[in-house]
Amino acid sequence: YDYLEKELLSYRELASETRDGHHVALRGNVELPDEIPLVLAQGAEGIGLFRSEFLFLNRRIPPGEQEQFEVYKDILEKMAPNPVTIRTLDVGGDKFVPEINLADEANPAMGLRAIRFSLKERRLFHIQLRAILRASAFGPARIMFPMISGVAELRACRECLEKARAELAAEGVAFAAELPVGIMIETPSAALVADMLAQEADFFSIGTNDLIQYCLAVDRGNEHVAYLYEPMHPGILRALRMICQAARDKGIPVAMCGEMAGDPLYLLVLLGLGIDELSMNAPGIPRVKRVLRQVTREDGEQLLARLSSLPTAQDVSRLLEEEMGKRFPELFAPMPI
Amino acid sequence: YDYLEKELLSYRELASETRDGHHVALRGNVELPDEIPLVLAQGAEGIGLFRSEFLFLNRRIPPGEQEQFEVYKDILEKMAPNPVTIRTLDVGGDKFVPEINLADEANPAMGLRAIRFSLKERRLFHIQLRAILRASAFGPARIMFPMISGVAELRACRECLEKARAELAAEGVAFAAELPVGIMIETPSAALVADMLAQEADFFSIGTNDLIQYCLAVDRGNEHVAYLYEPMHPGILRALRMICQAARDKGIPVAMCGEMAGDPLYLLVLLGLGIDELSMNAPGIPRVKRVLRQVTREDGEQLLARLSSLPTAQDVSRLLEEEMGKRFPELFAPMPI
Ligand SMILES: [Mg+2]
Ligand SMILES: [Mg+2]
Repeated sequence: YDYLEKELLSYRELASETRDGHHVALRGNVELPDEIPLVLAQGAEGIGLFRSEFLFLNRRIPPGEQEQFEVYKDILEKMAPNPVTIRTLDVGGDKFVPEINLADEANPAMGLRAIRFSLKERRLFHIQLRAILRASAFGPARIMFPMISGVAELRACRECLEKARAELAAEGVAFAAELPVGIMIETPSAALVADMLAQEADFFSIGTNDLIQYCLAVDRGNEHVAYLYEPMHPGILRALRMICQAARDKGIPVAMCGEMAGDPLYLLVLLGLGIDELSMNAPGIPRVKRVLRQVTREDGEQLLARLSSLPTAQDVSRLLEEEMGKRFPELFAPMPI
Repeated sequence: YDYLEKELLSYRELASETRDGHHVALRGNVELPDEIPLVLAQGAEGIGLFRSEFLFLNRRIPPGEQEQFEVYKDILEKMAPNPVTIRTLDVGGDKFVPEINLADEANPAMGLRAIRFSLKERRLFHIQLRAILRASAFGPARIMFPMISGVAELRACRECLEKARAELAAEGVAFAAELPVGIMIETPSAALVADMLAQEADFFSIGTNDLIQYCLAVDRGNEHVAYLYEPMHPGILRALRMICQAARDKGIPVAMCGEMAGDPLYLLVLLGLGIDELSMNAPGIPRVKRVLRQVTREDGEQLLARLSSLPTAQDVSRLLEEEMGKRFPELFAPMPI
């Protein structure tokens, strides 16, 4: 495996593009600043998902503006000239921060979480927005709001951002003239109105884990129904298509930051959909790049067309595994018994 | 109000159709057999949703085949010649049957419920299917499976039904030659693959309460996020349109049995969508019929077209209330302050 690791690291210097020259940005998902050296070592083109939750964990008092600012500034400087997408606080559901007093909910996955929490706790949100804006003066930052369910929430977020911007301007504090504003597409309703959202967002990032769970009404942490969590369910393919089509029609980039993005098995499908950016845990980057460099976008479009006519998740998965096994027998061939 | 009730009852004998002659069947939702006289008194064209849960409540041992058969037979005979749609056991989520030992789930709404439970507890399911089939010899029965998420589950249900049918045939027990098999459309994935489902189901019934909750990822029982439960969210309108379009393209009827079906405020929207049947609690029937008889299907199509371009739930609701208030000032005019 030492040899394999070495070979994979050799991909660091190579462009992340298909055989026919389509560039797909491969970026890192980062939970803790410690992971930055690994992300850099794997040749990531920046960070597609910087989770800000760690700042709020294991403490009684939430972090102040200066502390957050320094963390965001530091990561932007380390990653420059590549961009860093900072996601605002995404608590609730399975990401519980005990120090923030969340209600005892019957269905936390469908409760007060992510952007809903921020839009309720405006003071906390305002502090985070100010910190991100201030950091944006030090590198190519992007901001991303989690769990947006429709246009109204995106507008509410933009208003909060404007308020923070106006305040900083009045104080004479520096921030970038341009800060791209993106949203996670992870509720079915966001997928259904992706065309409307694409008119008001600067980019999309598809959160496949939650999107799949809500579309199928399945908590994958529940052993009795986890079998229904199917990334290749025909309904998921449809949702992904709607999202990507809307982004393309409106000319905004679409990224993916769920687990699907880092699994080379799905790469051709994602190419076929026209995804522009994949964000994943750092070790996945060379693995995905190795496959990416051996295929064409047309390969992806053709495979996707074949998969899209199939009626069940089992049919789709079977054909996908078969096709990927033919192309990359060393990666996806069925295990010998 | 005595006068109003009398006037409403006069609708009992009138056809449930639009001014331009489009028939929309108005049926009852029934939780307990006691409600049948009320359903008949309101002039319902049968029962669009007969919930079978009551049979399983407040007892240690689930009901046997004979007991279920007698209940289904009785209701079919009472409602004849109008049809009765019997929904198979829909436990879990907010409909907990303590006597059936359900797991302790972190998110019960996304857990082992409805058809998932039946497909796991095959013995219980088999007994219910036999009872429904036997009852079908005594009146126009339909069977409906709740929480179908895709084609694979529908096929699994049909297999179970075939098995029960074959067994009864071998035993020489009577059952109807034709038993229409419908599914509830209440998960986003079912809406997304409605065209595929319409090829294998005999009818749809849209369960708006759950569909809205899953599409928006909102538990409406949770006071912190209930404000996000918006029947007129643009994403919901899109989902409803996909479902109705698929049903129309494949020539199967589409019903609605969620709360939206019984609220006259939404009637024009549902007409515009082309819904064939509305099922509701009995007292709603004359109220909906009174509005139905004063509008045309084209009114609905025109209003729906205007609503569909609006980007937020608030915009849609405001225009809908305004338009319905203009047409029916005595029903929907804003309350005087
Ligand atoms: Mg998420
Ligand atoms: Mg339901």
